[in-house]
Amino acid sequence: MTPDTGISDTLSTSLPQDTICAVSTPPGVGGIAVIRVSGPKAVDIVDTLFRPNGQGAPLSQRRTHTLAYGEIYSHEGDLLDQVVVSLFRAPHSYTGQDTVEISCHGSTYIAQHIILALIHSGCRGAAPGEFTRRAFANGRLDLSQAEAVADLIASRSAAAHRVAMNQMRGGFSRELADLRAHLLQFVSLIELELDFSEEEVQFADRRQLDELACNIETVITRLADSFSRGNAIKNGIPTIIIGETNAGKSTLLNALLREERALVSDIHGTTRDTVEDIIDLQGITYRLIDTAGIRETHDTVESMGIERTFAKLAQADIVLWLIDGTHSDAHVQQLAQRIVPQCKEKKLFALINKTDLLTPAQIAEKQELLANLHIAPEQILSLSAKNNRNIDTLQDALVAHATQATAANDTIVTNVRHYEALVRARQSIQRARQGLAHNYPGDLLAQDIRETMHHLGEITGEITTDEILGNIFKNFCIGK
Amino acid sequence: MTPDTGISDTLSTSLPQDTICAVSTPPGVGGIAVIRVSGPKAVDIVDTLFRPNGQGAPLSQRRTHTLAYGEIYSHEGDLLDQVVVSLFRAPHSYTGQDTVEISCHGSTYIAQHIILALIHSGCRGAAPGEFTRRAFANGRLDLSQAEAVADLIASRSAAAHRVAMNQMRGGFSRELADLRAHLLQFVSLIELELDFSEEEVQFADRRQLDELACNIETVITRLADSFSRGNAIKNGIPTIIIGETNAGKSTLLNALLREERALVSDIHGTTRDTVEDIIDLQGITYRLIDTAGIRETHDTVESMGIERTFAKLAQADIVLWLIDGTHSDAHVQQLAQRIVPQCKEKKLFALINKTDLLTPAQIAEKQELLANLHIAPEQILSLSAKNNRNIDTLQDALVAHATQATAANDTIVTNVRHYEALVRARQSIQRARQGLAHNYPGDLLAQDIRETMHHLGEITGEITTDEILGNIFKNFCIGK
Repeated sequence: MTPDTGISDTLSTSLPQDTICAVSTPPGVGGIAVIRVSGPKAVDIVDTLFRPNGQGAPLSQRRTHTLAYGEIYSHEGDLLDQVVVSLFRAPHSYTGQDTVEISCHGSTYIAQHIILALIHSGCRGAAPGEFTRRAFANGRLDLSQAEAVADLIASRSAAAHRVAMNQMRGGFSRELADLRAHLLQFVSLIELELDFSEEEVQFADRRQLDELACNIETVITRLADSFSRGNAIKNGIPTIIIGETNAGKSTLLNALLREERALVSDIHGTTRDTVEDIIDLQGITYRLIDTAGIRETHDTVESMGIERTFAKLAQADIVLWLIDGTHSDAHVQQLAQRIVPQCKEKKLFALINKTDLLTPAQIAEKQELLANLHIAPEQILSLSAKNNRNIDTLQDALVAHATQATAANDTIVTNVRHYEALVRARQSIQRARQGLAHNYPGDLLAQDIRETMHHLGEITGEITTDEILGNIFKNFCIGK
Repeated sequence: MTPDTGISDTLSTSLPQDTICAVSTPPGVGGIAVIRVSGPKAVDIVDTLFRPNGQGAPLSQRRTHTLAYGEIYSHEGDLLDQVVVSLFRAPHSYTGQDTVEISCHGSTYIAQHIILALIHSGCRGAAPGEFTRRAFANGRLDLSQAEAVADLIASRSAAAHRVAMNQMRGGFSRELADLRAHLLQFVSLIELELDFSEEEVQFADRRQLDELACNIETVITRLADSFSRGNAIKNGIPTIIIGETNAGKSTLLNALLREERALVSDIHGTTRDTVEDIIDLQGITYRLIDTAGIRETHDTVESMGIERTFAKLAQADIVLWLIDGTHSDAHVQQLAQRIVPQCKEKKLFALINKTDLLTPAQIAEKQELLANLHIAPEQILSLSAKNNRNIDTLQDALVAHATQATAANDTIVTNVRHYEALVRARQSIQRARQGLAHNYPGDLLAQDIRETMHHLGEITGEITTDEILGNIFKNFCIGK
């Protein structure tokens, strides 16, 4: 809502004046449950139900960021629990409104009855994500930061966590603010000309303008292009293991999973979905795409198996081609001719397996064969999945590749909604550049620039509709 | 550990000096997770990982019962989350030791990594119930109060909640303290005599002593006897529905459950075990004991069905005898002769079902028949389970009976361990009374009194062993 964006069609997001409440901790039995109450009457409502210990002052007389211990009662005056109450006064709270958090014993019965008492005393049960939506409406977070909260809660790997955390802290928002500043500079120059249009002057040097537009397009393109990486981080890097039926695929998979399982069982309380083929290496998630083994019949490669595998290969970023090192060179070469050309856009690793059955000379021979097929030396690994030999080398190579792709402190876009807005913004800025090239009138140029700003504004939430907001927040959990 | 109890064999419970941490909220995804850290180094350890926002002071410079907002880092310096930290300085905390609660986003990933960072920085992962065990060791709670915390978390009905809450607030402990005071008065009088034993005086009037012992026995007996009620409150009042195969048992069960299901679905997030035959009426839990219908063959009652039912009837407090009102008086009378004598110790309700098929005269006839069998009028109800007629009357009658049994503000014992200690205490005080009656020497009397005090001390924890404590706390959840 900052006026300097020059966006005139901003929808005002009014701040609701009712007071909402919800259990913010996961459901179930535990030591503690936390009930969050936020809105103009949060303090007054909780004061009607809460009696501080030892003749303590009511919340209304307490300072922000203090804790009070006491008893909480139902609206009918029944003692419900001994609780600790946290007080956050507006604007120093998550939502920006007065907020009280009631920390009670972790019993579903108690948490429900405190919620009932709050509702009887004038609160409304919060909708999913409603606290965060208020934080957004109150200007505490922009929309991309609010969306990062949901990503942060859902993140299960170090990389996904890092990207969500960067976005929540406003890294992406700062990039967009930079872009807006440049766009504003651009449009100001053009609009200055429009004010003097009768005099047919050109304040803005057209070459300088094109340079500016080109820079803006570059940044937007970089952000949009980061989406495929961002998506890989959020959902796992799609990785396919291909190879013949006896090449040792499942042995390799088990070897990769073994290390991770040990790590996971180290951390108390870890629960994982039972998706078998997700592995996590040094904080990066790999989504393993299963393929049926390619059938080998009398040293010729069955076409059908390959075709089926290629259909799946299209979804992968990383291809692990597992080669049975005991096979003849001719056979490997025949396979290579089918596989290598399909992997031009992918990261291909050629893995010579069963080194426990091979002499060093035989291994070297296979390596040379693969090098002659223009596979880079660092992408050719020899290992024994069965004996766990060189599995760590493979893991390091996988991590090195992914880190290269994700480590940069660049902003990485992980959200489809953001990606789509960036693609639209790129189209607008490209139209503006064409207009410059063909010497279109300034008002047309200005319109394209304003459209670019509009699409970027959709990301941070300067431009929103209730429908967009509804779609975003309905996927949050209740209590956030 | 108060010296005036006169108990000499008290085991000292030393207060551990390490700092423990655990996730205190239920596992799973939610808005908030809370990590509790307690022990002498809690503040220092969290200070190494936590950076307050806006150049705020570290925790070590903050006052107790304050909240700080900031960022929490891993031990390797990676940003983990934006958190709110609650500071409770000793002795003003749950455990009585310095305690810090870290409120982070409700992600398993984040909570685990904060725990890892704390452990790397010198914390130890807490054992189940270890925070409460420290509260006990620190004298913040006695043992019966600590046990009430677990009951409170597990309680799922208003009655169970009320009993646990009363116990947690020290209601039971106060009763025991009263008893101890009386026992101490008793033993002091006797021991005074022992000091002057050579002079053969009797300071203590024997009749007065017996009156005192009699009062003590009465209180201990009342507490021990409350256990069957307490157990019914905690686990549900055992209630059996008996009747012939076509009397309408399952229709009645569904009618009783229907109302409750509606209530339950009203409250958001309610999850119930799938134990089908637990019902909750106005905050009281009834555990319905299933019986196979008694088979009726040619107007004679099959013996075997009845025998089987009687075996189950022994477990019940309440018997709902469902009568098919369309059956002949002779048949009902035959059944009654078998059932009524078995229910002398129970609360029997005789329910004349299928009133929709009966004339008022027929209903009255059945009522008279039952009254002649010495069933009290308020225990004879006529209803139609199928048409939901008079189900509410039955519910009211059930609630009225249970409320009578549980409403008194008396302390109610719900814990087997407490019950067993009370039974032992009663045996000791009874021995003391016998000793008085038979004019036993004072030192024998004193020994019985001290034994009584010992058994009462086991309840509140003056007398404990590591084994007892271990058994109690191992059933707590982690983080409590």
